[in-house]
Amino acid sequence: MANRYINPSGFTENLPHQQVVEDELKDSFAKVAESYGYARLETASVEYLETLASKGEINKEVYTIGRALSEGVNTESERALHFDLTVPFARYVAQHQADLPFPFRRYQIQKVWRGERPQKGRFREFYQADVDVVSRDNLSIYFDAEVATVMAQILTSFKLGKVTMHINNRKFLSGLFYEVFKTDITTPVLQTIDRIDKIGVEEVKRILREQICLPSASVEKLFDVIGRIVPLEEVSDFLSNLPTSNDALKEGIEELSQVFSVLAENKELKDFSFVLNPTIARGLDYYTGTVYETTIEGLEKYGSICSGGRYADLAGRFTKQKLPGVGMSIGLTRLLAILGEENLADFSRKSRSDLVVFLRDHQQSVLAIRAANMLRGQGLNIEVNYKEGVALSKQLATLEKQSIPHGLVCEADGKLTMYTLRDGEQANKQTFANILDIATYIHSAKVTRR
Amino acid sequence: MANRYINPSGFTENLPHQQVVEDELKDSFAKVAESYGYARLETASVEYLETLASKGEINKEVYTIGRALSEGVNTESERALHFDLTVPFARYVAQHQADLPFPFRRYQIQKVWRGERPQKGRFREFYQADVDVVSRDNLSIYFDAEVATVMAQILTSFKLGKVTMHINNRKFLSGLFYEVFKTDITTPVLQTIDRIDKIGVEEVKRILREQICLPSASVEKLFDVIGRIVPLEEVSDFLSNLPTSNDALKEGIEELSQVFSVLAENKELKDFSFVLNPTIARGLDYYTGTVYETTIEGLEKYGSICSGGRYADLAGRFTKQKLPGVGMSIGLTRLLAILGEENLADFSRKSRSDLVVFLRDHQQSVLAIRAANMLRGQGLNIEVNYKEGVALSKQLATLEKQSIPHGLVCEADGKLTMYTLRDGEQANKQTFANILDIATYIHSAKVTRR
Repeated sequence: MANRYINPSGFTENLPHQQVVEDELKDSFAKVAESYGYARLETASVEYLETLASKGEINKEVYTIGRALSEGVNTESERALHFDLTVPFARYVAQHQADLPFPFRRYQIQKVWRGERPQKGRFREFYQADVDVVSRDNLSIYFDAEVATVMAQILTSFKLGKVTMHINNRKFLSGLFYEVFKTDITTPVLQTIDRIDKIGVEEVKRILREQICLPSASVEKLFDVIGRIVPLEEVSDFLSNLPTSNDALKEGIEELSQVFSVLAENKELKDFSFVLNPTIARGLDYYTGTVYETTIEGLEKYGSICSGGRYADLAGRFTKQKLPGVGMSIGLTRLLAILGEENLADFSRKSRSDLVVFLRDHQQSVLAIRAANMLRGQGLNIEVNYKEGVALSKQLATLEKQSIPHGLVCEADGKLTMYTLRDGEQANKQTFANILDIATYIHSAKVTRR
Repeated sequence: MANRYINPSGFTENLPHQQVVEDELKDSFAKVAESYGYARLETASVEYLETLASKGEINKEVYTIGRALSEGVNTESERALHFDLTVPFARYVAQHQADLPFPFRRYQIQKVWRGERPQKGRFREFYQADVDVVSRDNLSIYFDAEVATVMAQILTSFKLGKVTMHINNRKFLSGLFYEVFKTDITTPVLQTIDRIDKIGVEEVKRILREQICLPSASVEKLFDVIGRIVPLEEVSDFLSNLPTSNDALKEGIEELSQVFSVLAENKELKDFSFVLNPTIARGLDYYTGTVYETTIEGLEKYGSICSGGRYADLAGRFTKQKLPGVGMSIGLTRLLAILGEENLADFSRKSRSDLVVFLRDHQQSVLAIRAANMLRGQGLNIEVNYKEGVALSKQLATLEKQSIPHGLVCEADGKLTMYTLRDGEQANKQTFANILDIATYIHSAKVTRR
């Protein structure tokens, strides 16, 4: 019995020190998205199975819901938990379009559920975080740059080290292909090129030659153009030297030029690069223009941590209204796991507390509560430890264990003694006469730590 | 077919103008809770059915999950969506106690699912927001005051009008009952007294006399004491005049005295009152000491919007470790519905945007993007409207429709023209030479609006 009182495997949940980091990711994501006018959206977790059926087929990874006590037979199995945020977003926009402002900029940070076999990097319950903008009939190419900018700002706020966003355009890639082979690009070709970061350029060329039977010289000619990654500052030159012999190529070049010229405005982004990577294809049929993938330098083994693209119609299955859009997505739970494995964040804190007020004895409790309230009034997070008579050394050990930077004792004579943890050193002791001076000190210490 | 492409009934989701208000509630909740050192916790949404079974019985409202394509038979029905936050919290603390700091202060804002018949005020998917603190073996009575203070601060930040928190103590009520009747209080008596706000004091007395067969004179004697609501400033006098003839009564009086003496420190709380209401019983056996209910003045018909209490042991079913705690809970989705019905919040905004930059023509796009970036750098939420050549009157109408307070046009000569909406008036037009002056203006206008 008792061993079943744990959470079922694959349905992730955090320990407090992981939760603190996850919250920082979510808060940063929301703050940046809102600074660009993106509104938070939360759809219901449960959809009709029909809604989740792509092209009429239900994925076996979908979790349906039913009522307990129905003796094994799931009588309400036509309802299910969503497995991504895109399908519910499409349904939501189609259903509520009369109440939405267009262009509709939204972000969504929600759990999704998939009945996968639990393994490293695969979860049954996890967070996704999406940014999309959709409009009616048409949507300016400026949004392709805006969405990339929002995600770049978000990823920069995550402090992941050096990050590169690889941008391409489906029309551009198709146009180049047509220019070389005088025939339309096919899904197998796209999917082969898409595997370049996994199998390498030579293997891709071999498959194109030997399995898809494209002429060797033409394959080389294609890779002369698409085989290099073009830094942002060289994109304009690179594109202006290409032919514009077919409409797709011409449009692709125009769109990429516009996107990169806007992205050039993001000069202040530290450790973040935008590049044109003409081999980025993205497997899905769904995308019709700009496509994005994002990698962390040195951690390319994890693949793209943030991907997406432009689509011609969000919700064709749910409404006759044409809804073009562009969006990108981060697998937040997976990113948190990467941060943990690679030790890329501060996982020492168990709460967001700045300071603990210690009680020496019962008489000081009201003093302590007042001091705590005054510090909260200054925007600080303050715990009171109501345990009396605990030795100072033990109190300081608790601070250290939970990575709370400051401890405060209200002395009987009205003096305030503050202890500040220093990395690997003894706690630093300071005396203050005024509680507001403590607030000022802590705020400035916070700025320094960053 | 097409009419099924909506969300299933009872599984709530917001329109953008409702989402903005819900986000404000959640953000305020989190901010206040963290300011008292409460850490955010999110448990998995899915538990083993055994974990959710109270006293071995599965509630028929529980939603189990199963895999699609299992042909009607739910082969994995031993897993289910949680129906509240208390049971998962108990399981979490029992499971992870080696990794938790005690006393463990946590807040939890999560969706829960119940298979109820959808009706007004009842949802199948909704948010709860809980604050609890648990410890090992024993927990200071100060926490009973702290939890009430945290919730009072949260509810004050919600701006609900005049709010009253009714506080009582189970030991106190039981002790008074024993004092009068010389016999222990029973569950039917507790449940009858608990209905006082629904059926009135005379009906409660009648049931106690006629159905529970208590002597009429003694019932009157009991109600002479418990029949009045005692304001915070009179609690000390009220309690000091009572007998302390049995242990429960003595302990109850001591605990209430301590709780109210700490609550008296919350002088700055506007429109919020703490009262001792000796008739508050709370139906559940679970509670052992302090109990809380909270009502909005004039909206008592909605019952308590925030309730909870002290419990002797959180997780006796899951661990041998005794875990006493105290906590309170808000039904956030239900509260949002009340705010909507009673028009108690600003439901006009569809996003948190402060300003929209309008484009007059294509040449200004880079200027507009730069202006937007500079304003974002000043902590403002800025949208750019990339549509060119839209008439100013139409742009201003869009502002008004979405309740975004400011619009900006970057003129060709470098001048910045800002339009500010005024309630029921024309937009106010101002010219600025410097973008930072605009940020200063908007920040000060925000402060004034509050």
